[in-house]
Amino acid sequence: MVKRYLSVIPLDDALALLAREFPCIPSTMQVPLEEAAGRITTGPIFARYSVPEIHLAAMDGIAVRSSETRGASEQHPITLPQAAWVNTGNVVPPEYDAVIMIEDVWEADGSYMIRKSAAPWQHVRPAGEDLAESEMVMQSAHRIRAHEIGALATYGITHPDVIAVRVGLVPTGSELVPAGTRPGPGQVVESNTVMAKAMLEEAGATCTRYPFVEDKPEKIRNAIASACRENDIIIVSAGSSAGTKDYTADVIAELGEVLVHGVAIRPGKPVIIGRIDKKPVIGLPGYPLSALTVIREIVLPFLRNYGLSAPEPDRIRAQITTSVAKEIGSDEFVLCTIGRVGSRWVVSPQSKGAGVQMSGVRANAYIRVPRASEGFDAGGEVDARLMVPASEAANALLITGSHDPVIDYLADLLRPQGICLLSTHAGSMGGILALKKDECHAAPTHLLAENGSYNTAYLEKYLPGTDVNLICIAERQQGIVSRDGLTFSDLAGRTFINRQRGSGTRMLLDYELKRAGIDPASIPGYEREVTTHIAVALAVKSGEADAGMCVYNAAKALGLPFVPVAQERYELAFRREHADDPRLAALIKAIRSPAFRDILARLGGYETAETGRQRPAR
Amino acid sequence: MVKRYLSVIPLDDALALLAREFPCIPSTMQVPLEEAAGRITTGPIFARYSVPEIHLAAMDGIAVRSSETRGASEQHPITLPQAAWVNTGNVVPPEYDAVIMIEDVWEADGSYMIRKSAAPWQHVRPAGEDLAESEMVMQSAHRIRAHEIGALATYGITHPDVIAVRVGLVPTGSELVPAGTRPGPGQVVESNTVMAKAMLEEAGATCTRYPFVEDKPEKIRNAIASACRENDIIIVSAGSSAGTKDYTADVIAELGEVLVHGVAIRPGKPVIIGRIDKKPVIGLPGYPLSALTVIREIVLPFLRNYGLSAPEPDRIRAQITTSVAKEIGSDEFVLCTIGRVGSRWVVSPQSKGAGVQMSGVRANAYIRVPRASEGFDAGGEVDARLMVPASEAANALLITGSHDPVIDYLADLLRPQGICLLSTHAGSMGGILALKKDECHAAPTHLLAENGSYNTAYLEKYLPGTDVNLICIAERQQGIVSRDGLTFSDLAGRTFINRQRGSGTRMLLDYELKRAGIDPASIPGYEREVTTHIAVALAVKSGEADAGMCVYNAAKALGLPFVPVAQERYELAFRREHADDPRLAALIKAIRSPAFRDILARLGGYETAETGRQRPAR
Repeated sequence: MVKRYLSVIPLDDALALLAREFPCIPSTMQVPLEEAAGRITTGPIFARYSVPEIHLAAMDGIAVRSSETRGASEQHPITLPQAAWVNTGNVVPPEYDAVIMIEDVWEADGSYMIRKSAAPWQHVRPAGEDLAESEMVMQSAHRIRAHEIGALATYGITHPDVIAVRVGLVPTGSELVPAGTRPGPGQVVESNTVMAKAMLEEAGATCTRYPFVEDKPEKIRNAIASACRENDIIIVSAGSSAGTKDYTADVIAELGEVLVHGVAIRPGKPVIIGRIDKKPVIGLPGYPLSALTVIREIVLPFLRNYGLSAPEPDRIRAQITTSVAKEIGSDEFVLCTIGRVGSRWVVSPQSKGAGVQMSGVRANAYIRVPRASEGFDAGGEVDARLMVPASEAANALLITGSHDPVIDYLADLLRPQGICLLSTHAGSMGGILALKKDECHAAPTHLLAENGSYNTAYLEKYLPGTDVNLICIAERQQGIVSRDGLTFSDLAGRTFINRQRGSGTRMLLDYELKRAGIDPASIPGYEREVTTHIAVALAVKSGEADAGMCVYNAAKALGLPFVPVAQERYELAFRREHADDPRLAALIKAIRSPAFRDILARLGGYETAETGRQRPAR
Repeated sequence: MVKRYLSVIPLDDALALLAREFPCIPSTMQVPLEEAAGRITTGPIFARYSVPEIHLAAMDGIAVRSSETRGASEQHPITLPQAAWVNTGNVVPPEYDAVIMIEDVWEADGSYMIRKSAAPWQHVRPAGEDLAESEMVMQSAHRIRAHEIGALATYGITHPDVIAVRVGLVPTGSELVPAGTRPGPGQVVESNTVMAKAMLEEAGATCTRYPFVEDKPEKIRNAIASACRENDIIIVSAGSSAGTKDYTADVIAELGEVLVHGVAIRPGKPVIIGRIDKKPVIGLPGYPLSALTVIREIVLPFLRNYGLSAPEPDRIRAQITTSVAKEIGSDEFVLCTIGRVGSRWVVSPQSKGAGVQMSGVRANAYIRVPRASEGFDAGGEVDARLMVPASEAANALLITGSHDPVIDYLADLLRPQGICLLSTHAGSMGGILALKKDECHAAPTHLLAENGSYNTAYLEKYLPGTDVNLICIAERQQGIVSRDGLTFSDLAGRTFINRQRGSGTRMLLDYELKRAGIDPASIPGYEREVTTHIAVALAVKSGEADAGMCVYNAAKALGLPFVPVAQERYELAFRREHADDPRLAALIKAIRSPAFRDILARLGGYETAETGRQRPAR
């Protein structure tokens, strides 16, 4: 059974349709004052009484009748038999009309002497000075700021009426397990409604997550119908595609109508917009990054129609480092890392896989490639939208090249200093090329030349005439990972899992194979490539391959035997012109710190004799 | 008994002292995932297992052995006896190494026919593609973003360790009543710890408000000691001044030590910084705007030392409309309204009274007048700090002049359109002068000339040669408010409450007094000035005065008799050059709307025949 999308419409049309087809009238709820910050008022708020309701002393001193103080001077002090001591905030008794501050009062025999006359109403806070009964404190559609909570308390408001948009989140799928349960084969942790709740509540919605619903039309029907009764908007997670177990569209059609099945966005195309009992029902695609895109680009803008103040991302013009190609017809959203290198902003697209949820964690920005566009050429200027505050993006430290877990630990050392190390996994050669184009701050690299030297030959070749420094992160063991302690010489005939061409590990393997006179063609699986050390170890652990080459740490993480083959110089290359960049300086300091040596020792597989040593590339 | 501040130190020194004297080590707490957005991690977070842990189908189709598909073509289809149907996300059984998508498969007699070969691992999501067991998901000191909640769920993290800074808030003062209780004479609604809780929790702190403590040293001592045991930071509200009932400093000195009593800021000077059991204890001044300033300028920056990400306000260079004078020696913070008029930003200081909590509601910005400065001259450029998002400030509609409650209702009509009408109460003449300097978008005015005409004579005099339009808001009744139905001719000999010079109401009164041949000197209280209609009515209601002149609405709000004296033309003046400004256009549209006519009718005291009529000022 092959189902097709009913219709695929452009994103802007989908947003216009939502605005047109639904009245977007929010519910009202009364929240206690301590939960009111950030909420939006549904009507004007008025003072319940005047503040103050009665005249108060604005100073510590004595309350007096101003008429009785006339003529007082240094030469002619006046003694006041009738005056009342008042502290700041005390009521000024009705018979008095001024306050004289304590510094200007002399006490003698129970009465007060003054040497200066008092103007009527001096140092008195008159009734209603702050606000009078029935005056408007704040308007409709006002986002209550944290400091205003105090003012509301003062004016007698304890439960302001605020906008409530009740969103019901219905997770469907027989494969779902809750967060905290390790998923078995074919099971998936339900994360889409967890994420949706966090994102929509940040925008001010009130979300209810319903229990998981099996992939059975009858059960899905009941769950959606009951969510419809209790909410203003219903979001059904997954089952929105057109596969055999994708029942969402059919169920919505039975209970109401499907207005849209398919929006021309990537990721996120298989989204459903339906209507049941006049209420919008949105079917979310299952892949986490597809769901993220639909929430950010469709649901959050839709919430603004209800008066919620979902914040718009800041935008920055930036130079894109790699080209993005796409077909005309869809808006495409690409997660990126952005940062300032020298005097310009550069933005690097991340992996496009909609299943790679980590892309959303690693990204600090995204770009929208418009529907009518065929993509962006590398080096062009694009509009990047920030996923972090602009000040945080400005402190990003962009690292492109060969990834090693210790880079994550360096990031961990830098983060408390306000520096965000963002690592783009591009392999050693990718790093060298990024350095050449001055599109990153530093490039971790371990490129072995035919003469057995590391890194310098490649820098000389690709960045001739550019001053580059190298700082050693560590000397790192590469070796054979297997389930049964295979050595390098055992490889022939065993199923191998390889790293991608251009990676330092691949070069080291080829170098060692050549030295040993082993023909790569004799190794089954040599052509099977993965892009990280840990992926190599995982392939071995799962039995997919018998052996692979990786760093010690990856084998250790999965409890697999590791037989060292060679030690390589894992260095950080950076342009000397950036040496004074405070982010880079902090990174170098971190590499040289005792804390980092401790981490290397704890992880194992690293020699630290050279760690922190700097050398020019030529 | 006159106590003095122990020492008054500059603000920067106070912040440096806090950073130096306290280790600022936050507590750690584990929060459930759904409360984790916005929290800051205290350590790196690692994936609990690989995602996926096993190879999955990336497409709906059949799982195959790629080696068995070699040679398949249109001419030479291959029938696969062994293949397994897989939906997207299903496990690819170990015997297979590729997936062929459904569109390329023909079913016949229970077996599958293909016309294209499959590359090894095509359409397979390999184990660990997203993240591998033990890899770092996020670093220490990372602010968890809403969309990352989903990723954490996927990687098996349900209760991340996040920074907890536990702040104990101790409200002291025998005069305190809780929000929701109408304060009796001399009572005050406790709002400082309510506000502090909202502001500090927004910055990520975990606050506990303790019960009110009477002004008795022994009780204050017990309350502070117990808050010290349960929190990282203790904030004592009020009693921090140097009056007779200000026990806070003495109690802190008994339990520990007072490091600072008095910081050179205004408002907020009488702040205390003490230490008990190595913990910081901060004594907050009692006036709400003093407390606000201390929280914003001292407590929030201090929280950043604990790793919390209290946001810094955006800054905008703006032209200041009125001069701010101060003595050298204190940093002074002034609440302001800011907006764009024409092509420049203008910022207007608001009332300075630390008891006027509404200033904090009306303000959308503030300025810091530095310690070494004697102030700012009108027209100069200053750094304004925003209290709203920059986009909201850019949509501010600045109205300066004579205030009437209907202006608040117009603001209420505009707010849902995203336009923030900010009204500076400056009286009609103040509005004309602001218009002359082009420092507001429009000026509500009701200035009576000797020939009986409204507004035009003044605009001609003060803005000669400038094209100004007037739009009528309403014709408004002014009259005598009293407790017993006094008329204009009853005024002589009765205690009066007057409006300030330059206000339209004052001019109308003087005009009518002159017409009636009444000498102002014969009216006791003629010299007593307040600045709003409602303040006039309040003075009458409280018995402070027998009569005053105000609009009908103010008398009605307080249930007082009102005898009309005259009807005046309450108009909005604006420069014709701004007529196309969308904010001003929206305001004019609101004035002409049926909704506004309904409001005028409901409030009473307004004639609407002229409402919405526009005329040139000359």
